[in-house]
Amino acid sequence: MNPETYQPEHFQWDYADGVATITLNRPERKNPLTFESYAELRDTFRALSYAEAVKVVVVAGAGGNFSSGGDVHEIIGPLTEKPMPQLLEFTRMTGDLVKAMRGCPQPIVAALDGVCVGAGAIMAMASDMRLATPETKTAFLFTRVGLAGCDMGACAILPRIIGQGRASELLYTGRVMSAEEGERWGFHNRLVDAGDLLDEARKLARSLAAGPTFAHGITKTQLAHEWNVGIDTAIEMEAQAQAICMATKDFRRAFEAFAAKEKPVFEGD
Amino acid sequence: MNPETYQPEHFQWDYADGVATITLNRPERKNPLTFESYAELRDTFRALSYAEAVKVVVVAGAGGNFSSGGDVHEIIGPLTEKPMPQLLEFTRMTGDLVKAMRGCPQPIVAALDGVCVGAGAIMAMASDMRLATPETKTAFLFTRVGLAGCDMGACAILPRIIGQGRASELLYTGRVMSAEEGERWGFHNRLVDAGDLLDEARKLARSLAAGPTFAHGITKTQLAHEWNVGIDTAIEMEAQAQAICMATKDFRRAFEAFAAKEKPVFEGD
Amino acid sequence: MNPETYQPEHFQWDYADGVATITLNRPERKNPLTFESYAELRDTFRALSYAEAVKVVVVAGAGGNFSSGGDVHEIIGPLTEKPMPQLLEFTRMTGDLVKAMRGCPQPIVAALDGVCVGAGAIMAMASDMRLATPETKTAFLFTRVGLAGCDMGACAILPRIIGQGRASELLYTGRVMSAEEGERWGFHNRLVDAGDLLDEARKLARSLAAGPTFAHGITKTQLAHEWNVGIDTAIEMEAQAQAICMATKDFRRAFEAFAAKEKPVFEGD
Repeated sequence: MNPETYQPEHFQWDYADGVATITLNRPERKNPLTFESYAELRDTFRALSYAEAVKVVVVAGAGGNFSSGGDVHEIIGPLTEKPMPQLLEFTRMTGDLVKAMRGCPQPIVAALDGVCVGAGAIMAMASDMRLATPETKTAFLFTRVGLAGCDMGACAILPRIIGQGRASELLYTGRVMSAEEGERWGFHNRLVDAGDLLDEARKLARSLAAGPTFAHGITKTQLAHEWNVGIDTAIEMEAQAQAICMATKDFRRAFEAFAAKEKPVFEGD
Repeated sequence: MNPETYQPEHFQWDYADGVATITLNRPERKNPLTFESYAELRDTFRALSYAEAVKVVVVAGAGGNFSSGGDVHEIIGPLTEKPMPQLLEFTRMTGDLVKAMRGCPQPIVAALDGVCVGAGAIMAMASDMRLATPETKTAFLFTRVGLAGCDMGACAILPRIIGQGRASELLYTGRVMSAEEGERWGFHNRLVDAGDLLDEARKLARSLAAGPTFAHGITKTQLAHEWNVGIDTAIEMEAQAQAICMATKDFRRAFEAFAAKEKPVFEGD
Repeated sequence: MNPETYQPEHFQWDYADGVATITLNRPERKNPLTFESYAELRDTFRALSYAEAVKVVVVAGAGGNFSSGGDVHEIIGPLTEKPMPQLLEFTRMTGDLVKAMRGCPQPIVAALDGVCVGAGAIMAMASDMRLATPETKTAFLFTRVGLAGCDMGACAILPRIIGQGRASELLYTGRVMSAEEGERWGFHNRLVDAGDLLDEARKLARSLAAGPTFAHGITKTQLAHEWNVGIDTAIEMEAQAQAICMATKDFRRAFEAFAAKEKPVFEGD
């Protein structure tokens, strides 16, 4: 993937200053996902593992909403007709999107506004950080279409973000989490006005892109892989991971800048 | 178990509209637990795995308190005389109550008021969602009777609900968590006035009972079993679990209702 | 180790009423850590496993700050010159400090004020409970020196205290968590005025030291070892651990005091 020239079919792609922005852009339908856009998102996040020029990713939605999730007519209708092997093929594909988002080295900043439901809420959850507007309405509404709350990792990931009790309520009832609740519960890192949303998300993204990006990738790896190990194992994993980072030039750059009373300029190696 | 005719000896049982209500009812002693009530609660929650007519369970206490926990004279006194095999028999029995509460497919809504301490706090913790009144005082007070905070799973479960730091304080000190703290920390999902408590808990329970109850059972299973697996494993588990739910009639009912611009009527199959 | 006579070289040690206080005390440099102080802290916490007279530990900083973390000139500079085996030797040593803090049976109360950054923030995180002043500024600022956020267990432990989303932001950006945020997010158990900080920390420590201290040690063990087991395994672990505590004299003392309507006097056996 060349981020300068990449042209996906099912969403908008922008790239500048090390920051790629993925914008779900079927605003007339509140940016639903389809079989094709799921697959292209999965492939894009997988390709990002090798896209060294991309340091941080912003995911956003066009037209005042993030995403209405899996399209009722284009996804839910056809699924009701499929045999089990194809149902599993679909749920594995959607799960693979989350795996790819957690697996690429770039931190992902979600810029959330308006409707953020179903698979849209999952993409928000699968991001590393979330900025939202006061109008953002987030719902893990799978139960409302007759399904379980366990979609694309939600029963494992959401409780780690907002706690088991609050996650249980959202997953069983499918109710909307208001923006204020989301901030108070630790789902949204910060609320910003809609007019500032994309600017603030990109500002945060650029500040990360200007940091030690190889080390950020290690942080992301460790946040994912220390999930279910004991404390002593996690500490040994971090001893090894941080020793790797101490062998980078960015670590030396930081020390030299500090000694010279200057601001370090990181280069990601 | 026939929920219409079930008559437990040591607590009150009510059943209507798919919702069973278990009421601890020795209000003159603030609803303590005894060897016999522990065992009967354990057996009841185990039997619920096969009680298809029961879709949701409410646990409550009579007379303005939830539960004062293990009775000092009927439980703690006798335990101080027992040899180790019988001590372990007791702690395994109480732990089996929590296992049975987490293991039955029905979501459990706790309706908490007044005193909610010891094994009472554990039963609240082992529920899926918690409504409480502003007067609810919750304490994991095992330390005050010379024991450790690790009772019936508390050191594993409580940190996942309110965070490791707050759980540590409650388990080491045995102090009361106020209702306001409980709501702010994510233990209580919502505070309601005492006069509305049982109505609100049953209203929530009935709304879940009117949902896709087979899928709710899958949500509960996944919330329990994804506890200590890696992210990729959790996602594969959910791909399989959700594919099962996509093969249910409730999923089709939801789509057909949506296409007809009607509200879906779920039947739990 | 004899707590009455112990005289560490690189920090201050006080002992009274079963409570040991470790004070980082190079206030003119905001109490940085050095190779030598890391090693001595590690050895001290390891020795505490056998120091039966010490029931609770308070960690504090002199002069209005907790700790500025690893000293830039004494640690970061030399590290930039070291080959990989020595880098790993260092990261394992710092990790061993956290392991020793989690591994000793004494609950640890951190008394935090002013600057609490880098390895200082880690020592705060590795404590069981945290009191802080409104002026406390906590930052996991490893990224600012070109390193990853995964230092000494932070990617595993911090998300369990404040949630995955908030931990991710702090670890990727290295930004300061204000005292108010820390309390709201569950990192700080309570904020107290600077003038009361050490008194309040010691008051909490003495109240724990007056409790069933053998049982407290079991609580600490279980909080650490139930981290990554399934719910049923955790419950079996607690059944065994609590049965052990029921065989202690402190359990009997509590019952006898209750029966006599007196306050129990625990002796830790």
